[in-house]
This record gives sequence, structure tokens and C-alpha cells, in this order.
Amino acid sequence: VNPQDTATQTAPSLWRLLTSCADRPGIVAAISALLHEAGANIVSSDQYSTDPQGGTFYMRIEFRLEMDTAHRAQLEEQLASAAAPLAVQWRLWPARQPKRIAVLVSRSDHCLLELLWRWRRGQLNADICLVASNHRDLEREVQGFGVPFHHVPVSRETKPQAEEELLALLGDIDLLVLARYMQILSGDFLERCGVPAINIHHSFLPAFAGANPYERAKARGVKLIGATAHYVTEELDAGPIIEQDVIRVSHSHDVATLTQFGADIERMVLARAVTWHCADRVLAHENSTIVF
Amino acid sequence: VNPQDTATQTAPSLWRLLTSCADRPGIVAAISALLHEAGANIVSSDQYSTDPQGGTFYMRIEFRLEMDTAHRAQLEEQLASAAAPLAVQWRLWPARQPKRIAVLVSRSDHCLLELLWRWRRGQLNADICLVASNHRDLEREVQGFGVPFHHVPVSRETKPQAEEELLALLGDIDLLVLARYMQILSGDFLERCGVPAINIHHSFLPAFAGANPYERAKARGVKLIGATAHYVTEELDAGPIIEQDVIRVSHSHDVATLTQFGADIERMVLARAVTWHCADRVLAHENSTIVF
Amino acid sequence: VNPQDTATQTAPSLWRLLTSCADRPGIVAAISALLHEAGANIVSSDQYSTDPQGGTFYMRIEFRLEMDTAHRAQLEEQLASAAAPLAVQWRLWPARQPKRIAVLVSRSDHCLLELLWRWRRGQLNADICLVASNHRDLEREVQGFGVPFHHVPVSRETKPQAEEELLALLGDIDLLVLARYMQILSGDFLERCGVPAINIHHSFLPAFAGANPYERAKARGVKLIGATAHYVTEELDAGPIIEQDVIRVSHSHDVATLTQFGADIERMVLARAVTWHCADRVLAHENSTIVF
Amino acid sequence: VNPQDTATQTAPSLWRLLTSCADRPGIVAAISALLHEAGANIVSSDQYSTDPQGGTFYMRIEFRLEMDTAHRAQLEEQLASAAAPLAVQWRLWPARQPKRIAVLVSRSDHCLLELLWRWRRGQLNADICLVASNHRDLEREVQGFGVPFHHVPVSRETKPQAEEELLALLGDIDLLVLARYMQILSGDFLERCGVPAINIHHSFLPAFAGANPYERAKARGVKLIGATAHYVTEELDAGPIIEQDVIRVSHSHDVATLTQFGADIERMVLARAVTWHCADRVLAHENSTIVF
Repeated sequence: VNPQDTATQTAPSLWRLLTSCADRPGIVAAISALLHEAGANIVSSDQYSTDPQGGTFYMRIEFRLEMDTAHRAQLEEQLASAAAPLAVQWRLWPARQPKRIAVLVSRSDHCLLELLWRWRRGQLNADICLVASNHRDLEREVQGFGVPFHHVPVSRETKPQAEEELLALLGDIDLLVLARYMQILSGDFLERCGVPAINIHHSFLPAFAGANPYERAKARGVKLIGATAHYVTEELDAGPIIEQDVIRVSHSHDVATLTQFGADIERMVLARAVTWHCADRVLAHENSTIVF
Repeated sequence: VNPQDTATQTAPSLWRLLTSCADRPGIVAAISALLHEAGANIVSSDQYSTDPQGGTFYMRIEFRLEMDTAHRAQLEEQLASAAAPLAVQWRLWPARQPKRIAVLVSRSDHCLLELLWRWRRGQLNADICLVASNHRDLEREVQGFGVPFHHVPVSRETKPQAEEELLALLGDIDLLVLARYMQILSGDFLERCGVPAINIHHSFLPAFAGANPYERAKARGVKLIGATAHYVTEELDAGPIIEQDVIRVSHSHDVATLTQFGADIERMVLARAVTWHCADRVLAHENSTIVF
Repeated sequence: VNPQDTATQTAPSLWRLLTSCADRPGIVAAISALLHEAGANIVSSDQYSTDPQGGTFYMRIEFRLEMDTAHRAQLEEQLASAAAPLAVQWRLWPARQPKRIAVLVSRSDHCLLELLWRWRRGQLNADICLVASNHRDLEREVQGFGVPFHHVPVSRETKPQAEEELLALLGDIDLLVLARYMQILSGDFLERCGVPAINIHHSFLPAFAGANPYERAKARGVKLIGATAHYVTEELDAGPIIEQDVIRVSHSHDVATLTQFGADIERMVLARAVTWHCADRVLAHENSTIVF
Repeated sequence: VNPQDTATQTAPSLWRLLTSCADRPGIVAAISALLHEAGANIVSSDQYSTDPQGGTFYMRIEFRLEMDTAHRAQLEEQLASAAAPLAVQWRLWPARQPKRIAVLVSRSDHCLLELLWRWRRGQLNADICLVASNHRDLEREVQGFGVPFHHVPVSRETKPQAEEELLALLGDIDLLVLARYMQILSGDFLERCGVPAINIHHSFLPAFAGANPYERAKARGVKLIGATAHYVTEELDAGPIIEQDVIRVSHSHDVATLTQFGADIERMVLARAVTWHCADRVLAHENSTIVF
């Protein structure tokens, strides 16, 4: 857990450069020389190699540079030229530009409210553009935050149509968040959606994947319960983990109490995962994540 | 941290008996015999002696018993008779009767919202009867929860009048909660208020008592920051501690980030302290607490 | 986690009474009256009902009473008389009498050393009577503590004989501890052994039961790794959990580092589980534990 | 908490470069270009600026490079040339060269044993060269690890001579560790000693600095107790903090139990601080530390 200074995260002249490539000598030297010559002041830099011998090298650089559109195009051209011979993949993102988020939710309010609240306080580095739900329970709550709410009911029979409807609603978003959305999204939906999706699962994965984790935690007699935020893949509860946390419980807690304790962990874990993702701090590598 | 089953906490026939007295043999036998004869089924029982030789003995019993008013009066008479020779102080509270809470707050919303939110979900075992603030910032937010909001400005000159005004507002409450209320209440106010007051302090007390704890935590270079919920006494930040928690931080976090991280700890710690108090789980002993 | 005062745990006049029975009114009253009449001073009392309606009621009482052998026999007779009509199962244990422990270990020293060290400091409330291993690596280390070491090699072919040899060695013990013993004990062995066995598993069960948990934790990309102490049953890593704990890790940690971090969690978790068991604080209920 | 892969830490060709200077653009570019030209493969790189505007910039680079003595001298010359115009302070350390540690201790064994134990397992990246104590209690224990033990008694009157004797004993060390050494070292001693000293204090500083922290923690009724490893300065318990941790306690724990729980935290916190220091991961900045 190593978040950056929030105050500086959204300064107008702040940029984030993310790179990945096969690990080889000279990458840092090439990129940092290029940025230095462009007049950038590097604010923070994180790097990680999955294996110095033949692994993948990931880097995230935050730098300050006053750039207008033309200037930015020029820097991107220089990056492209430098990246090509080293086969570096890169992405430049202006820190002042919030990620556009759509949230899917069912009946539980705690994860959704935590996100809406942090969004209103300006802590997410993101815009929550819409909320869609297969139930109407949270409609008024969402509207109270000034966020559009869409009711998209789902049954076993209507799932394909419901997914079509959702896809049509999502529009131009950067991230989909499943804040206790109790429906399994099809692989087809995920692919056509085209942006990462973050789910919160109410257990410490890989323990208790699937349904009713608190009931199963009680039956197994675990002494800690947890929550896991992960990127959604087609396989249920099996995607790359972004963040996890746990809380101590005892024999004296029944399932209702575990559920209530767990809700606090769920919302903290999901909020951290979304915040980090929106700060371009999370990079997926195979089935795990690098969190800078 | 050992909360009881929430589901059972508010059952109509559930009662809580709290006792304290000089430790001596036979207390448990006397009380449990009395309850057994009255037909009570003891659901949970916690006890603690500050010192088996000459200490104080505290006990909290939850029991189920269908009682109408007459039946209750009879049980209380029996308790009084049994308690007198052993010099036991006792209190009987029906679990179904929520504590009446007034909240004081200044400009920060996070602790107040956490309480309002849990209250609305029925998790506090309490009613939030009113919110008073020396600022108007949170007025609309509070009213959105259907809770009366009172604006009671305070300046150095008007403090006595402001405290009078607050006292007049509070009415018949069981608990006062200071959810980041940035004013020091006078000893006179606390005494006349006549109910316990719980404050949340944004540090791990006794470290950084007083003003600007996050700034001082940054300057001291601590690796964990915390929050403390405590009963208010006339001496600032020195009353009996109910609950504390911490979160790991690093050199890379500036004061704004510490403040943001700390806010999450503050609201969890305050919510736990209020919940436990309202479940009659917290007993003050000298300058510390027993939390059953 | 609610250990008692260690200083008082071993006082000569301290006794522990453990009871279990179908939950019904009057148990506490009956037992506490009996102890009061016997002149006992109750130091601590914990109780738990798995369900006030038709569950099992567990109670652990620590009391002080100067008793010689005759006096003890008399109290046990009274307990038997009181217990019979309520169908209460009970056990009386003098706190001054340490549990007799045998430890099985393979090559890893960390869990074994943690136990030996705490034993030497008098913190276990137990005697470590012998250590047996399928390897000779730790022989000198164990002997340095003045504890007998037995080398009992095991191969697939010799497992039955090895288990016979172990059974013959164990003698009159109260507890068997598997401190990273990398052999699966047969159901037959466990039954004939006749005392509880505590195992430490190097993962947060039920995640990563079985072999190579740290490798699998790395592959799954979890953000916390853990350890679990549990009673051994015939099914591998599936017995009642006594204690668990976790530590935060990141993408930058390789399997060797996870193993090293995990070792610290393993030894703390095992030490706590053994300490609590030896203080008669752990009661197995179905496939979980009550830890008073 | 972000330790590196232990397996790679001691590879023969691994080097650590630490730099600090006033923050200004171009530092990373200059250093990384130089290392790239020298043929180094950067394994990890951490950097931190206390303030992008006018702060101090710290960097730690681990790189692999096969270098003989002549080659190393050449690289150091290049570093000196590059560093001078940017006013960069730097230090190059071969990862394979363990730090030489002297440990001071009084009567408590837990912190000392934790260090000796990890040292014997090869986990400290250091050599424990000698142990000195003002008591003889731990002499045999230390000698059992094959480490020289020196008894240097101290009384109020003999403190200056005792410090002289200690200074003569220390010899050519890189680090002094105070593993529960219950004597205050003079500023004169610290200065003449000439190497950093790490102390473990048995509280969560700045709470309970000075004597008897567990007694004071009990009296204050805190719900968490902790330990702090910090660099020693002339002012008692006020030097830069390297690491801290806490454990949850309750009203039921007496001072003896707090002391026992705290001992586990103390040894973990001290072991982490010493391990990180010996991996050149800790940089002091004013009265705090940067831990990479």
C-alpha cells in the first residue's frame, strides 16, 4: 500500500507514463533521458521486473510538464520512436483527466455508497457516470448523488437482452465496477464492453469463491474473514487480484454478524482498488497484478 | 473485539443486566440463581475482576425473559434485595430499547455520515435524535437522513451561551457523540449534560493529543497512524479509551494523504465505540474501560 | 484473543473447570452455586452457546481453591452428582499441572524453535517431553534444550512401522504438536495416539490446503499470506481451526520471500494455538473451535 | 514493507547505489545513463523526493554487474564525475558484503535471540560480530551461537569507563544494535562510535517514551500496544523511526501479559529494522526515515 500524495495527483501539469516490455538493459536510461530532454520533472517512478532474466519489465512514471496539445503530440512521437526499437508498450495519461466509471449493483448498498461518497469528496480521481442495477432498491439513493440510475432487470431467460441493454447504456467509459452485482457477466459481454471490470468478492480468495462465502466461512470456522477486489475474467472469482484485506472474528459471531463485519472490509477493499486503478497504479501481469 | 450476534440483540424479550461491586465470592451464584428462578434463559455472560484480591467485579448478562411491566418491577425488586447485602450496583436495560443519541459535529462529514448510515441500516442499536453543529456545512446532508439539524455557532466570546443553547436542545438523550466536533466542551457542560459523551480523536492516544495530530505524526515520522474513541472528561483527550485502531503509512505519504487514510480509521473506530456503548458493552473503570 | 494473566495461570490453588451440555436454563446457577458452597473464588468465567434454542452450551471457569487430594475427590463427586441430571460433561484440571507435549518435526526449525524457546521461558504452561523427526537435521538443536530427540525415518514403504515406532515413543502425553512435520499421519495412528494433535499449515485455510502453498499463493497473486493452526483429523488440512493470521505481501515478493515472511506468521500462530490449548481455552465443536 | 527477493540479495554481482541530493531534473537520466553505459542491469530502483519543489531527492538502485577491483574503481570514478556537478552524494555497496553488527543487551533475551537466530539462518544480510552486556545472564546463550560475549558492567559511577571499554571492544563495525539495552548511551559515545545505532523501544512512540511503557500503557487503558525501532540520537527515544507495529490487547490483560505480548512485537519490529538497514533500504531524512 503505497499511494501517492493525493494533493498532487490532479495537478494540471501532471502526467503518468506506463510502460511494459521484455526486460533488458537500457530501458530506464532511454526513457529518463527522453523525458529529461523534454523538460519533464519526474515526481515519482516505480518499476518492477517479473524476472531480471527474461521477465517483463513494468514502469510507471509521474512527471510534471506544461504541455499543450501540440507539445503532447510531439512528446508522444518521441516516445513512439524511442519505444519501437526496444519493443516497449507505453501509455500516457494526463493525471487531471478522471477515469469514467459505470457501476453495476444489486441490492446491497454499502459498496456503492462508499464509492459515491468518495467520488463526491473528490477522492476517486474518477467520475461516476452512471449506476445500473437489476433491482430498483437503490434508485433514490443514487439519484440523490446526482448520478443517473438505470434499472435493467435480469432473469435467466432475459440475460442476453439485459446484457445488450447494459452495453448500450455504458457508453464511453474507462472502467466498469461491480459493487456487489449478483449476476455473472458473460465472456461475450466482457469482451464487447472493452474496458477493465473490477469486482468485489466477499471472501479472501481463493477461499470461498462462489456463492454464500460468509455461510461457508462460519461452517469452516475460520478466525479471519476477508474481501477481495479483482479484475473480472470469464472464470468466476478467478481474475487478477488487486487488493485484499481481512478482519478477525470469533466463534461468537453468527453469519449475520460476519456479513456486517465483512461489509466494512468489502467497501474499504473495493474503494482502494478503484482508487488505485484510477491512478493508473495497477498493472495486470498474467493472472496477478502489480500495484505501484 | 467480540460483538454479539446482531440478529439477537434486539429481540423483544432480550434484557441486559450490568452489575459492579467489590469482588467477593458468591456474586455469580447469587445473581444466576435469582435469574434462574425468575425463569430467565442466559444468552451470554461476561465478567471481569480488576483484581481477585480486593478489586472491582464487573458482570454483563444477556438473558431472555418475557416480562410485562409488572413482571419487570418484580424482578427489579428481587435484584434490589439480592444486591443490597453484597453492595452490588446494577442496571437492567431492555435490548429492544434503542439508546437516544445526539451528535455534535463541525465541518468534517466522514464520522457523522458513517453514524447516520449505520443508523439508517439499523446497525447502531440507537436512535440519532438530532445533530448540532457550529457550522452549516452539513445541514442539508443531515436533513436528507430525516434527522433534525441545529446550527449553534460558537466563538470564544459566545461559548457559554452556545453551551446553554446546546444543553437546551439535547433533551432526553442517553449518549452524546462528538463526531469531529472541533470545540472543547467545558466541565460544567459535561456535568449538566448528565450522559456519557464519546469523542473521536484523530491519533493513537496518548500520542499526539491536542491539535493537528496528522501534521505532528508526519513530523515525527511514525509508520502507523491511528484514531481513538474515548469518553470525554474535562481534561482534553485524556478520558477512558473505548477503541483504537491504526493503519500503516510510509514516508511517501504527505499530510493530506495521512488525513485521508486517517478518516477511514476514525469512522470505523467511532462506529465501533458507539455500537458497543449502545449495546451496554462498555464499562468505565477508573480511567480505562472494560469492553465485553 | 483474550488470554488470561499469565502470572496467575500457574498459581498452586488455581483450577479450571470445563463443561459442555445441551443448552438449557439453570446450568450456570447450578455450577456456580456448587462452587460457591465449596468455597471457591471464581477468577474468570467464559461461556458460549452455539444456539440458545437447542444448541450446545460450553463453559470454562477458573477458580481458586486450596484443595488436597481428598478435598478434590469430594468436589469431583459433587460435580458428578450435579452434572448427571443436567447431562453435563465436565473436566477439572489443576492449572499448575503442565500439559505433556510431544513434537513431530521434519527439517524446518522455525516452528519447533519457537515452541522450545517459549517452553524454556515458562510461557507454554506445558512440558515438551520429546521431539521426534524423520530427519536428523535438528537433533543437536533439540538436545541443546535438554529435550530427548528421536530419529524415526519414514518412507512410503516403512510408514506403518514408523507410526508404530512413534506410538511406542510418545508414552503418556496430553498433546501432539506437528511443527512442520511433512508426513501425513494415518487415521489409525491418530486414533491410537488418543490425544489431540495440533498442526500448523502454511496458508490461510481453506485456501491452499495441501502441498506448496507459497508457490500457489504466488501463482494466484494474493495480497496477504497466512498460516493456520488446526486440530488434525484424518482429512488433510480440514480439521477444526484454532488460530489464523496473515501478513501483507506484494507483487515484488518472490516465493522465497513469501516463505520467509510466512515462517514468522507460522511460528506465532502455532505458539498461540499451543498456548491456548494448554490453558484449556480451546474447545472443539463440530468442525470448528470455541476459543475462550 | 517492501523487501526484495532475498534469494537475489546476496548474489556476487549485485550492487547497491544510494544517492541523495537537492531535487532537480535530470538526476535519474544522468545516473541511469551512466549505469547503462557501464553495462549494468538495473534490478530494482526506488526513488523519493521530499518535495518536488526544493526538496531532497533520494534514490536506491540495485544493479547487476560483474566487476573486479579495477572495474569498480573505474565505475566509482565515473560516478564521482557525474555526481559532482549535480551535488549528488552517493555510496556504492556490494550486496554480497554483510554489514558487521555489534549488539548491546541487558537481561531480556527475546530481541537478541531473534537476531542471532535469523543471523544463523542467513536472513540478516549481516554478521553479528560480538555481543556486549552489562549482565552475565545471556553469556552462555550467546556463546552457544559461536559469537563472542563481553561482560561490561555499568553503574552510575563507572559509566564513562564502561563506555570507553565498549568503544574499545566494538572495533570495525557497520551497525550497533541495542536489543533491549537498558542503559542510556552518552552523546559522546554515539559520536565516537561513528556508526548508526538502532534501538528497540517497547512502546508505539511517541506514546510512552522513557521507562516502564507497559505499566503506563496499562494505566492509560490503551487498546493496542506496540514497539518502535529507531535510530539512536542523544535525546532519549526521539530518533528517526524505522519501523513500528502493534498488537490488540484488552482490559483483561495485566502488565505481565502486555509485556509478554509486547515481546513478540519487539522482536519482529527490531528484526525488520535491522534487516532493512543491512539491505541499505533505510535512509534518514531530518528526524524521519525513508524505507525503500
